[in-house]
Amino acid sequence: MRKLIAVLLAAGLLAAVSVVTAASPKKQTLLSSATQECLSCHRELTPGLVQDWENSRHARMTPREALKKGKLERRVSSEKIPAPLTGTVVGCAECHTQNPAKHKDSYEHNGYQVHTVVTPEDCATCHVQEREQYDQNLMARAYGNLMNNPVYLRLVEDVNASGSFKDKRLQLTKPDAATNADSCLFCHGTIVEVKGLKSRETAQGEMSFPVLTGWPNQGVGRVNPDGSLGSCAACHSRHGFSIEVARKPYTCSKCHKGPDVPAYQVYEVSRHGNLYAAQGKDFDFKDVPWKAGKDFTAPTCAACHVSLITGEGGQVVAERTHRMNDRLPWRLFGLIYAHSHPKSADTSIIRNKAGLPLPTDFSGAEAAPFLIDEKEKAQRYKNLQQVCLSCHSQTWVSGHFQRLEQTIRTTNQMTLAATEVMTAAWDQGLARGLAQKANPFDEAIEKKWIEQWLFFANSTRFASAMMGADYGVFANGRWYLRRNLQEMNEWLWEKGKKR
Amino acid sequence: MRKLIAVLLAAGLLAAVSVVTAASPKKQTLLSSATQECLSCHRELTPGLVQDWENSRHARMTPREALKKGKLERRVSSEKIPAPLTGTVVGCAECHTQNPAKHKDSYEHNGYQVHTVVTPEDCATCHVQEREQYDQNLMARAYGNLMNNPVYLRLVEDVNASGSFKDKRLQLTKPDAATNADSCLFCHGTIVEVKGLKSRETAQGEMSFPVLTGWPNQGVGRVNPDGSLGSCAACHSRHGFSIEVARKPYTCSKCHKGPDVPAYQVYEVSRHGNLYAAQGKDFDFKDVPWKAGKDFTAPTCAACHVSLITGEGGQVVAERTHRMNDRLPWRLFGLIYAHSHPKSADTSIIRNKAGLPLPTDFSGAEAAPFLIDEKEKAQRYKNLQQVCLSCHSQTWVSGHFQRLEQTIRTTNQMTLAATEVMTAAWDQGLARGLAQKANPFDEAIEKKWIEQWLFFANSTRFASAMMGADYGVFANGRWYLRRNLQEMNEWLWEKGKKR
Amino acid sequence: MRKLIAVLLAAGLLAAVSVVTAASPKKQTLLSSATQECLSCHRELTPGLVQDWENSRHARMTPREALKKGKLERRVSSEKIPAPLTGTVVGCAECHTQNPAKHKDSYEHNGYQVHTVVTPEDCATCHVQEREQYDQNLMARAYGNLMNNPVYLRLVEDVNASGSFKDKRLQLTKPDAATNADSCLFCHGTIVEVKGLKSRETAQGEMSFPVLTGWPNQGVGRVNPDGSLGSCAACHSRHGFSIEVARKPYTCSKCHKGPDVPAYQVYEVSRHGNLYAAQGKDFDFKDVPWKAGKDFTAPTCAACHVSLITGEGGQVVAERTHRMNDRLPWRLFGLIYAHSHPKSADTSIIRNKAGLPLPTDFSGAEAAPFLIDEKEKAQRYKNLQQVCLSCHSQTWVSGHFQRLEQTIRTTNQMTLAATEVMTAAWDQGLARGLAQKANPFDEAIEKKWIEQWLFFANSTRFASAMMGADYGVFANGRWYLRRNLQEMNEWLWEKGKKR
Repeated sequence: MRKLIAVLLAAGLLAAVSVVTAASPKKQTLLSSATQECLSCHRELTPGLVQDWENSRHARMTPREALKKGKLERRVSSEKIPAPLTGTVVGCAECHTQNPAKHKDSYEHNGYQVHTVVTPEDCATCHVQEREQYDQNLMARAYGNLMNNPVYLRLVEDVNASGSFKDKRLQLTKPDAATNADSCLFCHGTIVEVKGLKSRETAQGEMSFPVLTGWPNQGVGRVNPDGSLGSCAACHSRHGFSIEVARKPYTCSKCHKGPDVPAYQVYEVSRHGNLYAAQGKDFDFKDVPWKAGKDFTAPTCAACHVSLITGEGGQVVAERTHRMNDRLPWRLFGLIYAHSHPKSADTSIIRNKAGLPLPTDFSGAEAAPFLIDEKEKAQRYKNLQQVCLSCHSQTWVSGHFQRLEQTIRTTNQMTLAATEVMTAAWDQGLARGLAQKANPFDEAIEKKWIEQWLFFANSTRFASAMMGADYGVFANGRWYLRRNLQEMNEWLWEKGKKR
Repeated sequence: MRKLIAVLLAAGLLAAVSVVTAASPKKQTLLSSATQECLSCHRELTPGLVQDWENSRHARMTPREALKKGKLERRVSSEKIPAPLTGTVVGCAECHTQNPAKHKDSYEHNGYQVHTVVTPEDCATCHVQEREQYDQNLMARAYGNLMNNPVYLRLVEDVNASGSFKDKRLQLTKPDAATNADSCLFCHGTIVEVKGLKSRETAQGEMSFPVLTGWPNQGVGRVNPDGSLGSCAACHSRHGFSIEVARKPYTCSKCHKGPDVPAYQVYEVSRHGNLYAAQGKDFDFKDVPWKAGKDFTAPTCAACHVSLITGEGGQVVAERTHRMNDRLPWRLFGLIYAHSHPKSADTSIIRNKAGLPLPTDFSGAEAAPFLIDEKEKAQRYKNLQQVCLSCHSQTWVSGHFQRLEQTIRTTNQMTLAATEVMTAAWDQGLARGLAQKANPFDEAIEKKWIEQWLFFANSTRFASAMMGADYGVFANGRWYLRRNLQEMNEWLWEKGKKR
Repeated sequence: MRKLIAVLLAAGLLAAVSVVTAASPKKQTLLSSATQECLSCHRELTPGLVQDWENSRHARMTPREALKKGKLERRVSSEKIPAPLTGTVVGCAECHTQNPAKHKDSYEHNGYQVHTVVTPEDCATCHVQEREQYDQNLMARAYGNLMNNPVYLRLVEDVNASGSFKDKRLQLTKPDAATNADSCLFCHGTIVEVKGLKSRETAQGEMSFPVLTGWPNQGVGRVNPDGSLGSCAACHSRHGFSIEVARKPYTCSKCHKGPDVPAYQVYEVSRHGNLYAAQGKDFDFKDVPWKAGKDFTAPTCAACHVSLITGEGGQVVAERTHRMNDRLPWRLFGLIYAHSHPKSADTSIIRNKAGLPLPTDFSGAEAAPFLIDEKEKAQRYKNLQQVCLSCHSQTWVSGHFQRLEQTIRTTNQMTLAATEVMTAAWDQGLARGLAQKANPFDEAIEKKWIEQWLFFANSTRFASAMMGADYGVFANGRWYLRRNLQEMNEWLWEKGKKR
């Protein structure tokens, strides 16, 4: 530590750096003077936030030290970090005052140009590779992939609509921005824009703060005031940014629990989830790289889909990926059918044969030019299975995935049958869909059709992929796939008779 | 300890007190001779119960010591505790033999007048403030608020009814007491009354025990044999009465998990719940007062709604409240609409404009004289937001609650639309409601109407209030609000056509 | 340790045994040379699997040492264990090369006859009593109890069917083997048969492995290549076989979470589950015998249903049972009605008065000759209640179970009412059931009838048995029992009118 201070002294950086005692009395940390100034008020004003940060690695480690680590142990991926940032720990000012020119939400705050919304662009200073990979992740585009797709947008507008019953008729009004932000965009991300400044009385007297649209929000595809997409805090919760939090399955449950994407529910009852729940207390969630066997003996979401996994000796089992689909051959999530993974993170560019922005036709045929091919699927299967093979034999793994492939086929088949019932209803004028220039998602029978793929087929597939047992049967699984299809069919029959 | 014994000796209390070695060998505790006698049999008879108590603070701390603590650190709120109780730890006899005159369930047991049902009145000996606050809590009146409200009672009687199918007709019989106790009253609380004594063979020979109605029960609004209301053990589980248990979210899940009040489900997937699940192992759940930042960096139910929260330096962020609505401006729970919080804990006294015991009209207009006004709501928002501000900026907090206010409006609107469809059905004679002097809750279409507010509007609001993401969309949220309204409307249309 | 080696030397066993340093550097273990050879490759190939085993008791304890334990402390139940196995720890070869003659899946692997599927027969070498008890457990017969029952088989075939919509008609095809394996048989168990050998390129060159049907699978009633039934790994997860995992509730959640058997959901929100979640971190999950009070102060699934429970002094509260119904008077699970527990683990032999393989008539009358009588029920109640009485008074316990008995009556009554509506529909030709030689499970109204008993009556009963509160009311409980019955009745009324 003394040596480091000497180096800093030599570099003439001492003006901006001084050694202070943080909350933890035994430890001395190198705080920039700007961060010290932040803390001088905020330790009192927002003690929970500050303490969370003080428990963090950011509060204890300078980028200079971080860069000295070996390649596999390193948590920063940028090869070069701007010199003024390397000698102090990563504090308030280091993130909240970066790139002020780009940040439209930057404002004057006690003599500093501060911005509220820290973005992937800010984090990229030290974590450039993660930011680049994430930008190729469907999630980064989650706002536009939903809201810029005219088909999906009609679903959003119907789900979030407000209704009234006037003159014996149901009337719907389009959702307001607050409702969308509280609903779909909570996870997909809002557009955060600055709408001027507003002053307000504070404990420190009158102060001005920016007025932001769509705030607060930490959706995975947030559109930020600096033009970047996404929020690292979606998974790496502020202000601890703990790798433990990101690796534990709870962080994923925030958006991946529900009948549409029941990944967390399925994980919970899977053998993997059982073992994590029973024995995870003995796992090491902070070791980098994450060593299969040594650090953990049952995987979490991150282990299979994101983390750098090695054997005990350091041999790489799987590369870290914030693109998160390097190990995903299929997109199990049904829109309307499970399909080969899209090539581009921007799925609003996809066109099926009918010219609609959907990855498949209504018959399930893939919009092939926009989806990965068999060769890429094989590679991704291989990437994923390397993780499985840390604990399972090839026979086991092959058997598991053969079953998943069959489940993809049969659930797509059950979706096709429902779609054909729906199409018959549209054709016979019993309901009004796209061909009738109407919203295909707003009638009761259409909502049953949606549940067929969005809830029941999805649940069955997730259960198959991650050993979710009853989520493939009675817990939104095949029981409902079959029951719902039966009800749709009987509805068509009854309705047809009446005409 | 020696000094304490000397004091006790001087006070001539030694006859009733002796020093014995409890299960934990390193610690000596002061047990009353009565409690020793209880333990002499029950340590063998009910080892789990006794050990739970032996792990407790009650088993280690005398009220005299407890009273020496500083005001913020103190867990007893009574300024004076009767002298005979101060010198011994809080054992079996201290609670189960108190106030025998008031306890109609008191009975002779090995030479002592013992009562089975320990009540808030008993606990008030040391915890008077908690008892007084809790008495002003809606929960304390949960039995009467449900069962003494003739509107809600019809719902109870229909939900718990037993049905038979005779002469091609469905016939319903009113629920029996055991069914109500197993259903609604499990949480709301039963009436516990003594129905004589019954003798039975035991390991100690023939003994008599009281026969109690509605037993066992630990519902929050239990009507006790001593006339008091509630059960402290609803949250402070016997016989450890651990503050850790009360502060962890699981205890609340007992009654607040389900489609009607999905608070725990929502918490689980919220960022707060994620962080608690991932890092709660490092929190201090036993510190009093509970220090934001130092003791915890993500809140549980208790942190936001109940506990005394301070900063690290002891500055009070939020006062402890067992009234539990000091920080609640709105009653999100829809009966039929979300509404300003009731003034009185006894909600059966409320009358809306139509004279019904409901906090709103069927149109959603509030029964204003019985509900808190805007000024009180502002104060409660402030109380609640003080907790939020320990970790979040005012901009963040304001944005969050503005969105919640909008969600209250839109979910009430979606409930109104459904109520208007329902009213049209009643008016057109397609169903029979209150105006037809019928139960408005027993027909299939009425049950759909109930789910609109009791399940879907509630879920959407809880999700908005606590960042529950999919619980506001596909997991019983807006998707169902909209789908259900659509189905009700199509039913009305179809049904109307047939006539 | 030295002494043990001396003993082994004297016994001339050293040829097969050598002392090696396992992964944990501080500990020396006795590995057979065969296991050493397995590890020499698999420590690299499947590090997660190997480390899981290395953390296990199997990896540290020889059968010889295990047999020296006192009767209550002992985890092996076999009185004699074959000599060649007693001196080494229980490693790869000890299990995977046992009984090669019986194992049709045994194959040549690097000079050893290895089998993939370790079975109860293999485990019985050391755990003979557990294997014998488990063989009398319904679970061991879970495959046949489902698939060899022609009534239930029709349900399976309908739930897992694939559908298509051709010529305006819904057409169903019977499920394929992979779908059944991914659905019902995931928990019930598959038939694992050898279909020849297949060679494949591996890191060690070309090798041959058996081709297995229904693999992977760890269902409780798996039909194994050696003819035995079941999989110990269903609960005792490979390769740690940790008693902690089996005693924690998560392992049960794998199959007992879902609307049909919501045991885990109910446990989670019960007081028992709350306390486990809040305080389980302080319980001792590895102590044998498991001491109520000392080791735990709230039960898990295993505590009530499986484990050997004693008081602190060693007095037996409940005997260990892998039959798992020694403490179960009722089979709460409704097929179609809750009923007295079957006598035989093979339930496909049951015949009701109508000659159907069901434990009750359609009226609910029990197929008495095949079910336990009142005397046996009383004994099982006593066995179960001994566990309750470790923490609760007899008054409490009696009150609890009287309520459960009433809930069994009322839920069976609500099932009866639904069955009578269904029967009326069949009789009137509005649907086609067994009497019409049709599948009674495939029409929409029939599916509503199924949900009455399979989802709602079951949920209500599980909630009553384990204090699940809302699971007996709004979370798939009485609300749905009543709503569903209402809907069925209105359907019958409407449908009847049209004819």
